[in-house]
Amino acid sequence: MGEPQEGVEGRIKQLRDEIDDIDRRLVGLLNQRAKLALDIRELKPQVNRALYDPRREQEIFESLRAANGGPLFDDNLRSIWEVVLQVMKEL
Amino acid sequence: MGEPQEGVEGRIKQLRDEIDDIDRRLVGLLNQRAKLALDIRELKPQVNRALYDPRREQEIFESLRAANGGPLFDDNLRSIWEVVLQVMKEL
Repeated sequence: MGEPQEGVEGRIKQLRDEIDDIDRRLVGLLNQRAKLALDIRELKPQVNRALYDPRREQEIFESLRAANGGPLFDDNLRSIWEVVLQVMKEL
Repeated sequence: MGEPQEGVEGRIKQLRDEIDDIDRRLVGLLNQRAKLALDIRELKPQVNRALYDPRREQEIFESLRAANGGPLFDDNLRSIWEVVLQVMKEL
């Protein structure tokens, strides 16, 4: 039994390394996104725009749905972006 | 006043397009991550591993901190990943 179990453990380790790699890329992209959001926030007062724009949020959720090929559900993405948008707003 | 205001509006539009592009890449990566998590979940019973592993979660949070170059704070990433991990667990 030892050999196949070790094989499975090795495979789990490998998949986790792939997840760690994806997480690092996610962190990089989220920080890029945060920089862009800060740039926009700086520009808005110049054109008398409110910092919170519910229509823009709707547009973002639509764009997530359009990009979603699964296995995540649209509602899963919505839950994640609710936190992402909240965090960016409070930055 | 018209011209500079239009310039600022155009710049906001451009930054939003960049955010939409990042969001699409985030959706792709999160779905890749979900597939890997589902693969791991399928393997775990073969090696009598519990589906929930608090040590692994700790490892993930450490790796986020190590990868974080800001402007997001470590706590912001933690808030986002709490939802990401929850969503993947429920998939």
